[in-house]
Amino acid sequence: MNYTDLARTKAWAYLSRVVEGPSRSLNELLQQGRDPEAIAQAIKKRESWLGPLLAETESRYNWDRAEQDLAIISQLSGRLISPDDQEWPTETFATAFGFAASGRSDQAHSYQADAIAPHTLWVRGAPLRPLCAQSVSVVGTRAASQYGTQATRLIVGGLVDCGWTVISGGALGIDTVVHTEALNRNGCTIAVLACGLDRHYPARNTAMFKAMASRNNGAVVTEYPPGVAPQRHRFLTLNRLVAALSLGTVVTEAAWRSGALNTLSWAAAFGRVTMAVPGPITTSGSLGCHERIRRGEAEMVCSADEVRELVSKIGEVDVGGQYEFAFAANEVQKLSRNELRVFDALDAATAISAETVAQEAGLTVKLTVHLLVELVQRGLVLRQGGGWMRA
Amino acid sequence: MNYTDLARTKAWAYLSRVVEGPSRSLNELLQQGRDPEAIAQAIKKRESWLGPLLAETESRYNWDRAEQDLAIISQLSGRLISPDDQEWPTETFATAFGFAASGRSDQAHSYQADAIAPHTLWVRGAPLRPLCAQSVSVVGTRAASQYGTQATRLIVGGLVDCGWTVISGGALGIDTVVHTEALNRNGCTIAVLACGLDRHYPARNTAMFKAMASRNNGAVVTEYPPGVAPQRHRFLTLNRLVAALSLGTVVTEAAWRSGALNTLSWAAAFGRVTMAVPGPITTSGSLGCHERIRRGEAEMVCSADEVRELVSKIGEVDVGGQYEFAFAANEVQKLSRNELRVFDALDAATAISAETVAQEAGLTVKLTVHLLVELVQRGLVLRQGGGWMRA
Repeated sequence: MNYTDLARTKAWAYLSRVVEGPSRSLNELLQQGRDPEAIAQAIKKRESWLGPLLAETESRYNWDRAEQDLAIISQLSGRLISPDDQEWPTETFATAFGFAASGRSDQAHSYQADAIAPHTLWVRGAPLRPLCAQSVSVVGTRAASQYGTQATRLIVGGLVDCGWTVISGGALGIDTVVHTEALNRNGCTIAVLACGLDRHYPARNTAMFKAMASRNNGAVVTEYPPGVAPQRHRFLTLNRLVAALSLGTVVTEAAWRSGALNTLSWAAAFGRVTMAVPGPITTSGSLGCHERIRRGEAEMVCSADEVRELVSKIGEVDVGGQYEFAFAANEVQKLSRNELRVFDALDAATAISAETVAQEAGLTVKLTVHLLVELVQRGLVLRQGGGWMRA
Repeated sequence: MNYTDLARTKAWAYLSRVVEGPSRSLNELLQQGRDPEAIAQAIKKRESWLGPLLAETESRYNWDRAEQDLAIISQLSGRLISPDDQEWPTETFATAFGFAASGRSDQAHSYQADAIAPHTLWVRGAPLRPLCAQSVSVVGTRAASQYGTQATRLIVGGLVDCGWTVISGGALGIDTVVHTEALNRNGCTIAVLACGLDRHYPARNTAMFKAMASRNNGAVVTEYPPGVAPQRHRFLTLNRLVAALSLGTVVTEAAWRSGALNTLSWAAAFGRVTMAVPGPITTSGSLGCHERIRRGEAEMVCSADEVRELVSKIGEVDVGGQYEFAFAANEVQKLSRNELRVFDALDAATAISAETVAQEAGLTVKLTVHLLVELVQRGLVLRQGGGWMRA
């Protein structure tokens, strides 16, 4: 990292510390093209052009722990990322927060005010952008029943085995089942935490988070700088991030008023696919799921295949007219967004490795291989030596 | 029974024996005003004006067991009923078969040909018409799981405790759970059988059928005369009758391609409320229920209250414009169809007994008392001495 980059990274770290995310004022300044370093300096000097951000940073502005925070995250083999970075999930956030801002959602009325993109993220593990390119949040109650646990395993297993990434919080109960099942199957998984990455909360999941962070298909993410405690309000902010990072959210077990339903509401506000798994009517464990299904606020899903089908459909629709054909679609035109990313990364003359395709397409190697095999079956791709090329 | 009545009853018994129900040809002749005795005579004499009914009765026409059949049913303390009888569920059948014939149903295309009302019914137990006036079919798989059994009990318990009647087949599994739970709660219940009432099929349910037939709130019903065996095709015909006798059908547990789903399709063809109970996704037991819910062919229901709410709504809609008000409805106008039947049976000057109200309204005493108490709570009815009157 050269000096300029370092100075800029330190500015982002300072902003992450003194502006508790998300902040509409900060995002607006950044969108106006203001430089993060200039904003950081202005906060320190209490300059009036900052507008509402001046008041927002009043109690924290002289708390410059940037170097220390970057040292801590570096020791954890983690990093701070911002919209500057290639691994920032730009499109994923753009579609989510763009939808919420457009007022197209029924949820927008209550959620619009808080539907603000994060300005920075602290990450341990694999690059975030390819990891969340084809992902589904799987969430549920802390008080997971045996049934909820089994149902969650079924859904998660079916998703990660097809190369999809699962995203959840880091709480005990269903969240933990999600990551454990993904790890057991060597699947892609992201945990979003409500505290600094040096805090191990809940303590029982310390080893699990470490395992996720040390793989090339797992990541642990938070909006909060090192040392920040997992306070109650941060869990609600976390729910928003879980929903925004994924293309759809499925609640596998939630009783009446479970917090997992809040994530589902966020998904609705972001125009994502909202899904819920049914369960026994003889216990209260699935009451929340049933209520959302009955009210038409969640699609009922009974298998990972159904989840993938629903989310893939929306993925194609979201591309915005690109797939509206006047005539019958040819085989390439029928491809989903991510299939097309893989296909476009291939050459017609030379075979290239799956790793290269994955890098080019911005997808995980696991998902890329899965999609390549599908494309071979459809006659669009050839396997040549150890590589892949267009047919 | 005087001589004329007896002769007519014998004609119906003969028709029940030689015309295996349902028969569109026979129904059409009856609708044209032809006398059942005249039709019976014509069948015996092979008269050509019978049209297709002549061929239909070719193999059985000289099999006149009417006296014998009536003796058997009499020994069982049962009876043969026809549209002549006050207890014939005229309106219930009219709305069901009328809807199917109108072609308004999506199901009509495949079910229309078979959507033919029964011409006679063999009954043991309480009068049929009041018993099915406010009823729901509860059906499901023969291979009932522990969950399916519990879920069925929950739904049935909540229905019969509110005075509603449950209707089901007589098979082992969910059907048996339905009747057993209703009997245990002294609730109203009807079993529809696919064989003659002197046949005890399945044998294990003999005592249950006897218990139902001996109560003033239970009945066992079939389209088939004594001696007829429970053949496979008769179970499909039975499903149609279960759906037609009730205002809605709820499947509590059904795997892929369960016969209970056929009853649900019949309910749809009859314009009745179609409902299914969700269950675990970790077993195959509820696959059929989930499939129907997902395809929008059944409403998801998780409690008896939800069943009652859905069915009551339709009940009110079915009245056909009577409840479309230009202005805000008053308290009486807000009443459901059966509440109104009870209210209309009351006098403003003299209190009458619940039994008299039930008789007048054509409802069971149990349901009548339940509705009377509700009307008292709404300030429309007064309890006076041992009786009831308008407020």
